[in-house]
Amino acid sequence: MRPVGRVESPLTDRADAPRQGDEGAPDCTVAFEPTVAEALRDIAPGTELILLTWLDRADRDVLSVHPRGDAARPVTGVFSTRAPDRPNPIGLHRVTVLAVDGTRLRVSGLEALDGTPVLDAKPVLGGVDER
Amino acid sequence: MRPVGRVESPLTDRADAPRQGDEGAPDCTVAFEPTVAEALRDIAPGTELILLTWLDRADRDVLSVHPRGDAARPVTGVFSTRAPDRPNPIGLHRVTVLAVDGTRLRVSGLEALDGTPVLDAKPVLGGVDER
Repeated sequence: MRPVGRVESPLTDRADAPRQGDEGAPDCTVAFEPTVAEALRDIAPGTELILLTWLDRADRDVLSVHPRGDAARPVTGVFSTRAPDRPNPIGLHRVTVLAVDGTRLRVSGLEALDGTPVLDAKPVLGGVDER
Repeated sequence: MRPVGRVESPLTDRADAPRQGDEGAPDCTVAFEPTVAEALRDIAPGTELILLTWLDRADRDVLSVHPRGDAARPVTGVFSTRAPDRPNPIGLHRVTVLAVDGTRLRVSGLEALDGTPVLDAKPVLGGVDER
């Protein structure tokens, strides 16, 4: 796994980050490596993307959690939660591109911490007849 | 990255696989490692899951493609397509669980080839007030 970019965000502490991108994440920048410029060529302002990240501050030994850190909720297997602590801590984020500057994308809706490695970007998939 | 399971599927050849899981993929099995049984504990028949896989037969040097292999369509950066060939070939699949047998899940809607490593499973996320 080779990161293709990094998140540049005002979020630096897990305790301050929203639990999902649509729960108050600040606008931030995804700085892609110049080597993948060709892969980015069709991304424009307004594009909705699924970003995959490597949540490098996660605990990979955790297999069950109280959802959303709420001790009142029953312990749940991590494959039934979006908890970052899990065997392979891959973050899945639906974001909207606000601006493109070379290989730097300004995006909304991304709750990843500053410095988080980016692994992949994919389009949101439409119906079968739109593909 | 440590695989947490493997796909067991009648699909063995990329040329025969549908392009997406909702385009005719056969039912198949995801055999998880016994070490992650705790992470699976809340998955039941009917659960919709997002599976992340490592598309181990992909070409990681490809940065742009004709979408869906159709030469009539303009060359497009891979971050704007779901092509398996891409720098980090992580497959993103929305599947439905049909049956659970220990750490083996029978699923529909998975177009990955037999033997594909599985990296993670996540719930489909509902609206903010359902989380």
